[in-house]
Amino acid sequence: MSEEKNKVAEISDLGEFGLIKHLTKDIKLVNTSSVYGVGDDAAVLDYVGKQMVITTDLLTEGIHFDLMYTPLKHLGYKAAVVNFSDVYAMNGIPKQMTIALAISRKFSLKAIEELYEGIKLACEKYGVDLVGGDTSSSLTGMTISVTVVGEVDKEKIVYRKGAQINDLICVTGDLGSAYLGLLLLKREQEVFKIDPNMQPLLEGYDYILERFLKPEARKEIIEFFAEKGIQPTSMIDISDGLSSEILHICKQSKTGCRIYQEKIPIDAVASKMADEFNIEPTVAALNGGEDYELLFTMPLKDYDLVSQNPAISIIGHITSAEDGCNLITNAEQEIEIKAQGWNGLEN
Amino acid sequence: MSEEKNKVAEISDLGEFGLIKHLTKDIKLVNTSSVYGVGDDAAVLDYVGKQMVITTDLLTEGIHFDLMYTPLKHLGYKAAVVNFSDVYAMNGIPKQMTIALAISRKFSLKAIEELYEGIKLACEKYGVDLVGGDTSSSLTGMTISVTVVGEVDKEKIVYRKGAQINDLICVTGDLGSAYLGLLLLKREQEVFKIDPNMQPLLEGYDYILERFLKPEARKEIIEFFAEKGIQPTSMIDISDGLSSEILHICKQSKTGCRIYQEKIPIDAVASKMADEFNIEPTVAALNGGEDYELLFTMPLKDYDLVSQNPAISIIGHITSAEDGCNLITNAEQEIEIKAQGWNGLEN
Repeated sequence: MSEEKNKVAEISDLGEFGLIKHLTKDIKLVNTSSVYGVGDDAAVLDYVGKQMVITTDLLTEGIHFDLMYTPLKHLGYKAAVVNFSDVYAMNGIPKQMTIALAISRKFSLKAIEELYEGIKLACEKYGVDLVGGDTSSSLTGMTISVTVVGEVDKEKIVYRKGAQINDLICVTGDLGSAYLGLLLLKREQEVFKIDPNMQPLLEGYDYILERFLKPEARKEIIEFFAEKGIQPTSMIDISDGLSSEILHICKQSKTGCRIYQEKIPIDAVASKMADEFNIEPTVAALNGGEDYELLFTMPLKDYDLVSQNPAISIIGHITSAEDGCNLITNAEQEIEIKAQGWNGLEN
Repeated sequence: MSEEKNKVAEISDLGEFGLIKHLTKDIKLVNTSSVYGVGDDAAVLDYVGKQMVITTDLLTEGIHFDLMYTPLKHLGYKAAVVNFSDVYAMNGIPKQMTIALAISRKFSLKAIEELYEGIKLACEKYGVDLVGGDTSSSLTGMTISVTVVGEVDKEKIVYRKGAQINDLICVTGDLGSAYLGLLLLKREQEVFKIDPNMQPLLEGYDYILERFLKPEARKEIIEFFAEKGIQPTSMIDISDGLSSEILHICKQSKTGCRIYQEKIPIDAVASKMADEFNIEPTVAALNGGEDYELLFTMPLKDYDLVSQNPAISIIGHITSAEDGCNLITNAEQEIEIKAQGWNGLEN
C-alpha cells in the first residue's frame, strides 16, 4: 500500500464517468436476460415479455446533501425521485424500489422516520412499491442507497445512443433553477454562521428552493409520449447540467449538436436570482445540474406532436460529429460546449 | 430538532429488524408485479413467466469492514457474494448486480481497482452480470452498496415463513468459523499495535480466515435441490448467527424448534481456535454470524434425498410454537434459544 499515496490524484484525473468506464471496461454480459449493462441511466434486463430497468444511486452526507439546509423529509423524497427520473429517462415506468441506509448515532428515530416519510410520499405519488429496506450503522453521517426497478416495453426503450443527424433537441420544464436554489441556501447559511439572529431571506424564492430541495421527476412527459405515440431517439435526465448531458448523448450517438442560448428555458425567479449573484442564467442551466428535467431528441416529423406540449422546449438540433457540439449565443457567436462541474474533470 | 438528542436511544431499542419493521409497517404494495416486499432475504417481483428477486446491502467502513485486516479484493468479493447468498436463500439464481461506491480521498485508483477485481471475480465465478455502477465521493471512508437481482420459478420460491411442524432443520457446511477468523484477525491486530515488528501468527488458520475474509455462497446446494427435486419449506442464509436465523424462521412460520448441540457442524480448526479463545464453539456457531451457509427446513419424507449430500447436516426439527425454540445440549439440558449479537437488542 506504500505507493498508493502517490496515486490519489488518478481518480480525479479520470472523473466519475471515466472511473466507471475504466473499472467496467472488461465486463462481458453472459446472461441472455442482461440486455444492457453499465453506460446508461439504468440497466435493462429481459424477464420474458416485459423488460425491466434497474438503477442505483448512493448519496452521502456532506457530498450529496447537507443537513444544515436539507429537511430530512425532503431528502428522502429527493433520494427516491432522482432514481425514478433515471427510469423515466429510459422511457420506463418505475415500479419497485429498495433502500439501504447507514446512519450514525447522531440521528434519532424521529429523524429517520421523517426521511422515510419523504420516501413513502414519493413512492405514493409515483406509484412505486418500496420492496426492500436495509438499515445499519455508520461511524459518521448518513449514507442512502436507492435502487429502483421499472418496466418498459422492449421496443420503447430509449437509450442515450440513438440520436440522428437533424433530430430536434428538446428539454422539459426549465433549467438552472435547482442550482440557483442551492446558491441561495448556501448564501443564507453563511449569513446565519456570522449572525445566528438573522432571519434567512427566502421569501419569494419558493420555486427555486423547491426545485433544489424537492425536485419532481417527469412522469407526465413519459405518459404524454405513450399517449401521442412519440418515440424519442435518445434521452437522458439532467442531473449534472445541460452541457454534461448533451455531451453524453452526442458522444454515445456519435453526433454533434447545435443548441441556441435563446431557446434554453429559464424561469423568471431563477433569472432574478442569477442577476443577484451576478451569474449569466444560461451558465446555471448549462453547468448547474440537479434539475431532473428530461433532455431528448426526436425526428423532425414529430415536431407538431411535441410542440403541443407547453412543458417541452425545442432548444436545438443534432449535427454530424465533425461539426462538434456548439452553443449559439444570443449574440450569434458559436461556442464549443464543454462539460463543467466535477464531472468536467473527465474531459 | 432540539428534542432529538433525548431520542437517540430509541433506534438501538428497536434493533435493526425492529427499525425496518417500524419504518415499513404501513407500506402497501400497489403493483401486481410486486409479489413480496420487505421481510425476507430478497423482494420478489413478477415480470411475467419468470419471477425475479432483488436484494440490497450497504456496507460502511469501520462498521461492516475494517481495512486494517481486509484486503480490498476480498472486500469486493465478499460484498458481492453476501448478496448472492441472499438470492440463493430464496432458492433463486443471481443474474445481475449493481454496485454503488462512495470513497474518500484516501483511496487510490489502484485500491478501487482491487476492490472491483474482487467484485468481478465473484461475478465470474457465480455467473452474475454487473449491470450498473455508480461511484462518488464521501467525506470519510468507504461505503459500498450492492444490489443483486435473481430469477426463480414462481413455484420454487422459498420464503422464511413456510416451516411446518415435524420438518427437519438442516444447515450447510459448518458454522462459527467466520466469527473465529474475525477474532483471530482482531487479536493479531492488537498484537501489531503494541509491537509492529511482530509477525502475525496466522499459519494453519487459513480456513477460518478465508471463511471470514472471502466467504462463498451456496450455489451448489441450490443446484442440488433442483437436480433432486427437493423443495425446502423455508430457508434463510446465516449472516447473523444460527440463533438469530432459526428464530426468524420460527417467528415467520409461527412454529417452535428443537436444535441439538451435538448436531451443529463445527470445523476442526474452528474448534481449536475456540479453545484458544476459551469460547464454547457452539456459542460461535449460534451467535457469531457471517457464515453465509443456508439454514432450511424440509419435510421428513425427503430425509433420504438430503442425507446423500455430505455438505448438509440435519440439526433438529420444527415443533409447535407453544414448545418454544430450544437447544438440547450435549448434557441433555434444554435451553431457550435467544438472538444474540447486535440484533439481539430487538428482543
